[in-house]
Amino acid sequence: MSKIVNRLLAVFLIVSGTGLITGSAWAFEPYQPLPPEPPIPADNPQTESKVALGKMLFFDRRLSVNGSLSCNSCHDLARAGSDYRPLSTGATGLTGQRSTPTLFNVAYQTVYFWDGRAVSLEQAVASHLLDKTVMAMPSRQRVSERLANIDAYAELFALNFPDEGINYENITRALASFIRSLRTPDSAFDRYLGGDKHAISKSALQGFSTFVDSGCGSCHFWVNLSGPVPGLAFKMGEGFYELFPNYPGTREERRYHLSDDLGRYSVTHEETDRRMWRVPILRNIALTAPYFHNGSVATLEEAVRVMARTQLGKSFSHQQIADVTAFLRTLTGELPGISLPQLP
Amino acid sequence: MSKIVNRLLAVFLIVSGTGLITGSAWAFEPYQPLPPEPPIPADNPQTESKVALGKMLFFDRRLSVNGSLSCNSCHDLARAGSDYRPLSTGATGLTGQRSTPTLFNVAYQTVYFWDGRAVSLEQAVASHLLDKTVMAMPSRQRVSERLANIDAYAELFALNFPDEGINYENITRALASFIRSLRTPDSAFDRYLGGDKHAISKSALQGFSTFVDSGCGSCHFWVNLSGPVPGLAFKMGEGFYELFPNYPGTREERRYHLSDDLGRYSVTHEETDRRMWRVPILRNIALTAPYFHNGSVATLEEAVRVMARTQLGKSFSHQQIADVTAFLRTLTGELPGISLPQLP
Repeated sequence: MSKIVNRLLAVFLIVSGTGLITGSAWAFEPYQPLPPEPPIPADNPQTESKVALGKMLFFDRRLSVNGSLSCNSCHDLARAGSDYRPLSTGATGLTGQRSTPTLFNVAYQTVYFWDGRAVSLEQAVASHLLDKTVMAMPSRQRVSERLANIDAYAELFALNFPDEGINYENITRALASFIRSLRTPDSAFDRYLGGDKHAISKSALQGFSTFVDSGCGSCHFWVNLSGPVPGLAFKMGEGFYELFPNYPGTREERRYHLSDDLGRYSVTHEETDRRMWRVPILRNIALTAPYFHNGSVATLEEAVRVMARTQLGKSFSHQQIADVTAFLRTLTGELPGISLPQLP
Repeated sequence: MSKIVNRLLAVFLIVSGTGLITGSAWAFEPYQPLPPEPPIPADNPQTESKVALGKMLFFDRRLSVNGSLSCNSCHDLARAGSDYRPLSTGATGLTGQRSTPTLFNVAYQTVYFWDGRAVSLEQAVASHLLDKTVMAMPSRQRVSERLANIDAYAELFALNFPDEGINYENITRALASFIRSLRTPDSAFDRYLGGDKHAISKSALQGFSTFVDSGCGSCHFWVNLSGPVPGLAFKMGEGFYELFPNYPGTREERRYHLSDDLGRYSVTHEETDRRMWRVPILRNIALTAPYFHNGSVATLEEAVRVMARTQLGKSFSHQQIADVTAFLRTLTGELPGISLPQLP
């Protein structure tokens, strides 16, 4: 989907007001409850056993070079799959450039990382393990060897991947399968969309209206409020990017250093990708402060205010901020109960 | 209990062979299943609600200065309450001097830390939060303030501690209550002690015999195989210490740097405390490699061999090592299922 079509779509959404377009040539609903099943790649079918194996790996600190971090150290499932820090520090003490995003509902993304540099969840996982600012493992082989030396893992990989057993691809597959299982359905907003008109407060409803009418919804729409998803208009690997900040030169931009990082440009080195960013998921946004790619904004209220200024060129009133924030809080879904695995 | 009485006790144990002394003036069983209830301090009664609050705190990284570590980061409940590392690195990158011990069954200890410098679990927790090599919080007040600023915690503390609400003592009390709930009953050895003679293998039974006859059992006895417990011969705060290495000058001592750390001397500065150490818990020892106060020994087999050399002046045969190791593996209890809390 081209940038121009995005903008047309945005116009549709803005025109539609409270946001339901049906029966048109587009035939989609810009906002809809979290679908029961996320898209699953053909070469990594979701099985209960593989999800359980991936969960063990997710909590296993031996996937970091010095055994100090597990995936859960930054994508903390006790904290909605994120951490409380602006930026996270990796296994060897190096700090990454971008704030750790939640993992809940990322199965519905089409690209990964803030700059969309991974075209599948498997690829994103693979990248994390070797990233010097994250798990800092020295090589794919060393990851495989370390797990292969643990008898219980050797057995579980043989069970789940009978042809190949433990190798790097299968490690990333198991982890991706577990991460795909992390969904938060049944938010108040989902119930509202499902027909329960009392599921969200008047303030939240007003906030939703402000959100759409003001233009937030021109990027933040569809099931994750982060743009198109696979199987509809988008294909896995095809990202939905927007310019941020859209209105340059604001006080907010300077204060929060919003333009220091060039976003997708750092991946493609194309001029048109300067400060282009994957539109982030808004589900559970109330649980995952601090905000923005650099984690520079501490509260949801301030994040809403800054977004209005930098993206829409608008100054939201206190009431508008309160209403939009109330709406965003309705996006908090039902977090699944997660029991700790017992590691071998 | 004096050192001399310890030694007398040890003689009893050695004489008793497989280890059941009953009906004597001593009237105790040197080995016994994990008692259903650990000792609970009068000023911190165990309640379900307080345990639940303590569990939240245990998983909350905001108890470390920079939000990087929770208690679970080193005392990993997915890994029997310990980590895989010889030494653990704290929130600011400083590494501690001693290996992280398991937290399971520590409610049955009388002193805490390898050198026994804390006389209660509450005191041990309090010390961790401010330790520069652990959570590195700047002051007791800053810990309390940080939690008091989180509404859900303010409410939960008011509920559990109606007189005082959030303060440092109550934070340590809630954490200690949760940690006291971490028990692993029903090991194969417990079932054996309970009368099921087939609960452990022939090799393990032979290993138990070797363990007691060789002198391991002169320190490693009673419910945690770590010496006396409160309510029997010992009082909370009164430690059970032994010299390590007991036979100086061995190759093992040099290789694993076992004498570099002076143990309890670093607390008391008394000459008689040089290289004196709290006898560690052996329950779940098969799950908590690497071994010793400095985490210098990677495998259980090597740990048994080194202990025989340095503590007993003996060279165990391969068979003896295999048998004793088989016995130690019977000390793995039933790890409780632990669900992640959802943090505010």
